[in-house]
Amino acid sequence: MSLDAVLARIDADLPKATDRLMEFLRIPSISTDPAYKADCDTAADWLVADLKSLGIEAEKRPTPGHPMVVGHVGEAAEGVPHLLFYGHYDVQPVDPLTLWKTPPFEPQIEDTPNGPVIRGRGSSDDKGQLMTFVEACRAWKEIHGSLPCRITFFFEGEEESGSPSLIPFMQENAAELKADLALICDTSMVSRGVPSIASQLRGMLKDEFTITGPRIDLHSGHYGGPALNPLRELSRLVTSFYDEETGRVAVEGFYEGVHEVPEDQLRQWKTCGFDEEEYLSSVGFTEPHGEKAYSTLEQQWARPTLEINGLWGGYNGAGSKTVIPSEAHCKITCRLVGDMDPDALRLKIRKHVEDRLSTDAKVTWDNDLEGSRAPVMDITRPEFEAARGALSDEWEREAVFTGMGGSIPIAGFFKKILDLDSMLIGFANDDDAIHSPNEKYDVKSFHKGIRSWARVLAALTKAA
Amino acid sequence: MSLDAVLARIDADLPKATDRLMEFLRIPSISTDPAYKADCDTAADWLVADLKSLGIEAEKRPTPGHPMVVGHVGEAAEGVPHLLFYGHYDVQPVDPLTLWKTPPFEPQIEDTPNGPVIRGRGSSDDKGQLMTFVEACRAWKEIHGSLPCRITFFFEGEEESGSPSLIPFMQENAAELKADLALICDTSMVSRGVPSIASQLRGMLKDEFTITGPRIDLHSGHYGGPALNPLRELSRLVTSFYDEETGRVAVEGFYEGVHEVPEDQLRQWKTCGFDEEEYLSSVGFTEPHGEKAYSTLEQQWARPTLEINGLWGGYNGAGSKTVIPSEAHCKITCRLVGDMDPDALRLKIRKHVEDRLSTDAKVTWDNDLEGSRAPVMDITRPEFEAARGALSDEWEREAVFTGMGGSIPIAGFFKKILDLDSMLIGFANDDDAIHSPNEKYDVKSFHKGIRSWARVLAALTKAA
Repeated sequence: MSLDAVLARIDADLPKATDRLMEFLRIPSISTDPAYKADCDTAADWLVADLKSLGIEAEKRPTPGHPMVVGHVGEAAEGVPHLLFYGHYDVQPVDPLTLWKTPPFEPQIEDTPNGPVIRGRGSSDDKGQLMTFVEACRAWKEIHGSLPCRITFFFEGEEESGSPSLIPFMQENAAELKADLALICDTSMVSRGVPSIASQLRGMLKDEFTITGPRIDLHSGHYGGPALNPLRELSRLVTSFYDEETGRVAVEGFYEGVHEVPEDQLRQWKTCGFDEEEYLSSVGFTEPHGEKAYSTLEQQWARPTLEINGLWGGYNGAGSKTVIPSEAHCKITCRLVGDMDPDALRLKIRKHVEDRLSTDAKVTWDNDLEGSRAPVMDITRPEFEAARGALSDEWEREAVFTGMGGSIPIAGFFKKILDLDSMLIGFANDDDAIHSPNEKYDVKSFHKGIRSWARVLAALTKAA
Repeated sequence: MSLDAVLARIDADLPKATDRLMEFLRIPSISTDPAYKADCDTAADWLVADLKSLGIEAEKRPTPGHPMVVGHVGEAAEGVPHLLFYGHYDVQPVDPLTLWKTPPFEPQIEDTPNGPVIRGRGSSDDKGQLMTFVEACRAWKEIHGSLPCRITFFFEGEEESGSPSLIPFMQENAAELKADLALICDTSMVSRGVPSIASQLRGMLKDEFTITGPRIDLHSGHYGGPALNPLRELSRLVTSFYDEETGRVAVEGFYEGVHEVPEDQLRQWKTCGFDEEEYLSSVGFTEPHGEKAYSTLEQQWARPTLEINGLWGGYNGAGSKTVIPSEAHCKITCRLVGDMDPDALRLKIRKHVEDRLSTDAKVTWDNDLEGSRAPVMDITRPEFEAARGALSDEWEREAVFTGMGGSIPIAGFFKKILDLDSMLIGFANDDDAIHSPNEKYDVKSFHKGIRSWARVLAALTKAA
């Protein structure tokens, strides 16, 4: 059976695949720091060369920032999906360097209680993950002479610095990038050894407002008492966002468009190995603090939030200052789920504040902040169940459709700009220390990740 | 009658008195800026020389900062009080310089709709006010050959920069500075033309606390929902400080030691010319926002406050950051009245917070912030009513005992260190723009201020 041959090839080639990854990791492609601009370019060149070695028509494509890498291989065929694979070749900065046990761009294999790991910046986020797919393609090509379907490769070099060029590039090249399904390898497994397909992410609404009390900063002796203090006003408004009894958001209509999680999915979540105690205690909590009627996992994956990300006003230096400030500021973000409409929700939140303003208080809103609906994957598409089966086979453990608390903007952009559903499969572990010193990727994640993609390719193209 | 001779002398000497003040104002004695250290010294020398010209034994006394000026004149006598007069020769910085219509240290007389003013930095705060007393002494000396009682002059040069040397100097020289009554000329009239003796000031309690939620900053996608957000927690705690219905502070026992204002004083306040509408509207308010059961003036002068002076946590830069911060911070000050005990109140406020903390939230307090009781003058002392009569005579308008929302720390120090009551008489107007560009002092304030002090000296010593 040809899949077995591909898998055997992957096993045999693992040392060389690891060497290739190490070479890639040695390029310090830190996108946010201009000092590493040439290195980002080198990483893009490295990818182009590697894709070309697989017979893929790949090229580096300029942007106002770091280049994109786009590659095409294969022909569209009846009944076989055209896949787009996305990853990013840029990495996070490495500071504080003193906390690294080994130099971040001199990757090495290290033994740990959980098995060998590849230690180095980008090993997990995202070079190691990205290469699981490339190496699966390499093995497939070597066994079969060609890939099983048309595949577009799309790698960016600005994911860790806000992706400023991404949307314009996708808009300008929409026809070229259009495919049937996007595969994204930039996520974690829900717990060690449990293969996961992230099928429901949360959307995002950003807003910011300023409460103005007095026209100017006041002296708390001269005006303390009669003055409306905007910090007190803002605290009252923030407090009014919540119902303390239930832990719910108290903004009228906030939960419109929120759906309950179906029973069978809840069942998967209950047995997915999520370690609630570890999740909470690792950051200092003894209990979950969200909606009391929902489990910790539901609070994180399936329930919306209204979060205060920044709040400030008055004096914050050393000692004391007897000021009643003129202004108080608040930054909020909402995580959205289901069919929540960010534009409608923005109006509800603003109305909530405006309805509760004290006499003499004013509110002004920042109108430059965007919102995006929750990307909810259509897991009724047959590809999703096929991929879930392939992952279950590889990991000898039922794969689960998970939620994700975060937003993975790229999935939203694929939907919005290319009308493309995304399947998010990743093999990272929560202890990979991405964005932190001593980032690592388990060799097991790398090896079984490559094997997983080979199985997924086989399942999606029924070519095995 | 000899007081009339003194007053006539004051009238005749006004041009020269004004010239002397202008000379004093030309010295840029900005205490907070080290670049003006020599100028502060020059201002002290100027004062020493001027006092000596009145036959006062005056000298410049070194401190680790700017020097004090101390002068003594006259002998203690039975039935005649020994007075201590306090003022400060340093001034505020002048930035932004571009907003000054005339150079801040080139004082000039300028006509305005309210009459001529002396324009320049320090004209009102406090050189002009300080000189009203010195000029009264000069006229008295010239008519009578000597002053009517023993007087100690005490001028500091660090009032605008936190008075770091004041307490140590007073402690080291307590015996020398001890007197029967302190006179302080650094306050305003309650309204234009209404002579005022500030007889009740508010005390101050400072505190600062930090609420810690998660052990580290969290990603609002990964933890939003289950996470306790310290900004929300802090907002809830701040809100719990107040009873919205009554406008009162809701901390248990907060009002212990607060007394109602006596009826006759309330009557004075009602007719003192305080322009409530102007006071509120000048800073953008249409109504007072303090305790609903009390008038605006009572809220400012006679009622305690719990004010939020600074509140901050999370991200406050441009755009958005999806963070749930680990910490949120709050600076508070309370204005105290009557017999409120700052030490006891601190414990009550802390208990209020600690009793209401959520599970998993922690609070830490800054233990380096002080408190001071409200300095309440003993207006039953005969000197107070005598001075009030003298001021009423000069201004042809009943003088009033006013409150002051602020703290005038020097009055508290005189009480605490020298066990000395203070009488605060000043002739500034609210539109003097002290601490701001284009500071001025009405010529009328200067002229009638000098005459007022002559009358007060006469009344206190019954020497007229």
